[in-house]
Amino acid sequence: MNRLHATYLIETSFELEKAINTMAGEQSTGTFVKIPGESRELMEKYAAKVENIEVLGTVAAPSLPHAKHKNNPIQQARITLSWPMENIGFNLPNLMATVGGNLFELGQFSGLKLLDIRLPDAYGKYFDGPKFGIQGTFDSLGISGRPILGTIIKPSVGLDAEATANQVKTLIEAGLDFIKDDELMGSPEYNHFEDRVDACMAVINDYADKTGFKPMYAFNISGTIDEMLNRHDYLLEKGGTCIMLNLNWVGFSSIQHIAKHSQMPIHGHRNGWGIFSRHPLLGMEYPAISKVWRMAGVDQLHCNGIRNKFCETDESVIASIKSCQNPLWSLQDRALPVLSSGQWAGQAFDTFEAIQNTDLMYLCGGGIMGHPSGIAAGVESLKYAWQAAMEGQSVSEAREKYKVVDEAFQFFG
Amino acid sequence: MNRLHATYLIETSFELEKAINTMAGEQSTGTFVKIPGESRELMEKYAAKVENIEVLGTVAAPSLPHAKHKNNPIQQARITLSWPMENIGFNLPNLMATVGGNLFELGQFSGLKLLDIRLPDAYGKYFDGPKFGIQGTFDSLGISGRPILGTIIKPSVGLDAEATANQVKTLIEAGLDFIKDDELMGSPEYNHFEDRVDACMAVINDYADKTGFKPMYAFNISGTIDEMLNRHDYLLEKGGTCIMLNLNWVGFSSIQHIAKHSQMPIHGHRNGWGIFSRHPLLGMEYPAISKVWRMAGVDQLHCNGIRNKFCETDESVIASIKSCQNPLWSLQDRALPVLSSGQWAGQAFDTFEAIQNTDLMYLCGGGIMGHPSGIAAGVESLKYAWQAAMEGQSVSEAREKYKVVDEAFQFFG
Repeated sequence: MNRLHATYLIETSFELEKAINTMAGEQSTGTFVKIPGESRELMEKYAAKVENIEVLGTVAAPSLPHAKHKNNPIQQARITLSWPMENIGFNLPNLMATVGGNLFELGQFSGLKLLDIRLPDAYGKYFDGPKFGIQGTFDSLGISGRPILGTIIKPSVGLDAEATANQVKTLIEAGLDFIKDDELMGSPEYNHFEDRVDACMAVINDYADKTGFKPMYAFNISGTIDEMLNRHDYLLEKGGTCIMLNLNWVGFSSIQHIAKHSQMPIHGHRNGWGIFSRHPLLGMEYPAISKVWRMAGVDQLHCNGIRNKFCETDESVIASIKSCQNPLWSLQDRALPVLSSGQWAGQAFDTFEAIQNTDLMYLCGGGIMGHPSGIAAGVESLKYAWQAAMEGQSVSEAREKYKVVDEAFQFFG
Repeated sequence: MNRLHATYLIETSFELEKAINTMAGEQSTGTFVKIPGESRELMEKYAAKVENIEVLGTVAAPSLPHAKHKNNPIQQARITLSWPMENIGFNLPNLMATVGGNLFELGQFSGLKLLDIRLPDAYGKYFDGPKFGIQGTFDSLGISGRPILGTIIKPSVGLDAEATANQVKTLIEAGLDFIKDDELMGSPEYNHFEDRVDACMAVINDYADKTGFKPMYAFNISGTIDEMLNRHDYLLEKGGTCIMLNLNWVGFSSIQHIAKHSQMPIHGHRNGWGIFSRHPLLGMEYPAISKVWRMAGVDQLHCNGIRNKFCETDESVIASIKSCQNPLWSLQDRALPVLSSGQWAGQAFDTFEAIQNTDLMYLCGGGIMGHPSGIAAGVESLKYAWQAAMEGQSVSEAREKYKVVDEAFQFFG
């Protein structure tokens, strides 16, 4: 397969095929000039092709405003376009411009959402993809057979390096595998990146020396290219094992650059993702963009979680997790799904039922800190809930067997 | 002013102040844990502050789905939050994570759009901003007192380097000041970046030698960091005068990196912008994001145009143009607004009336190529229309005076 495929949900009051042809034209040859015969042949070779149109039905009112309106029923359809990969080359910003560029503004459409992409095989050979991915992250921690359990440093801002390190100490002594910076935490005056690394890695290295287990801390290195490279190197020198990037804002070119350099897994934070995903007929679904992030080299990818505090439906969460876990070309290019937002022991059961594996990172904030028997009991409640879910126990069996799980259900359920 | 301000349009069925406090919390301290007294003080210092709430009215149905619903009227409001700049530091990805991060997914809101931002003064001293901006771009061309007139190479894809150069020759001989690559054109097999630069710059340099006027060609250098730096250097060596970036996909960190290095103006293409802007209650308005692009160093910024073929309203287009032209801290940090999409001689009159200046780049495709008397007449029709508009002539006066303007109105009007 040497063509790039993209599937869209579209809505239009225009004649369907005409509207789709406009879309295909805008995203490829986009010509409006007369050109001689030879060039026309060349051009036709590189035009986007409409692969499939599946009419879904009609709607009473346009989903998005400001579309041009024809006096026809407003139809929704699922359609697939394809491009020869020669159009794009091995170029991620141009890949995004092709599948996710001007087309959202086209006047013919009162709805347009990119649902998924299918990548040319040559991309699998060219792009390095995640250096660590699922297996590499688990190997780095020496964990297997259960999800990686983690949390986020809160307050997100306001803590100095020492207070952060104190919190890290409490959290890893309570049994957590993984801790991350909040996406808002960078290198503020009162908590410089280097100070935070010094203080937190001292605690983590000390814990590793004593116990033989080294928890992973994802430090947010997002900044300029030079800052990110320097922060990566500084962290590596101090024994760090994970970097975090604000993916939407550092951008694809920067992700590629840092990933090439990185000797640690990249924890991919998708803040701003609501812009892309919140409206059912605008933007893109997670499988589309996350595949490109994986090609760029991101190892761990945020997916929300079941019954999250945000607006994402469980169906969408599950589809995102499955997509991240599904190989593009090999097991190595799978990304580790990071579940978070309103998570506690309770969702272990639904999540395992939907996914049937534990290739996950499971982050809880209140679900650990708020446990009525304390933080260590909060962590235990997660371990037991996941173990019970994996063993096929029902919620009531697990509550009966594990006091900390029962307490979690009483408190959070 | 040492705080960052952001103004939002929001919609919620929750008690307004509570919902806004959640939003402010999520985007700053975001705490849910009990912390000791000293840390609490520290934290309160860095919490986001609600500066203003202006209730706009109520709506019958939620604008976005999946919000949590309280049995209250659904209110819309314009609100302003502020953060101490210490939270963010001089860090553009973290600035975006603060004003444009997780908040779009918050369950309390059935609508949330970032309208504008106001930047701390210290940013003006720290960030270089556009190296060329409006004045630098006009100076590079040696043009003054009228808009820079340009076009886009079409077909967007499919042309080889030689065919592109032939088209460039035709276009500059017809009198155009500026030409740009399509955003889909990168460095495909059939038209390598270096080949295109060689062929097109030969034509442009030759024309400059003969006439003393050197048109500007914005080559799309978007790619990896190394590719972009190499392409910049290659182009500079061949006498090039402008580079183009696909801003949303290369990302803020990459833009900063390239801008620091660049010795040419950066033409900022915003493809994908429809995702951010198309829904009136989701994403962001252009003044917000374009200010951050300007701090990162972008010189020329796409704004659509009046009566464009896309979905943007004229009101929004005008607001974008004015925002780009409005200094952040100095005349140097203004960005050159690039008007395009469905433009021809006709919009010169409305545009000048709204803007009252010619600090613009005015790009036409069909509006030049499709002119009934040919391409040179198309360019002439733009020059005369702008001249007439600047002199305060009415459309009918201009049509009477200039045949090519009259033909344009007959054909495109």
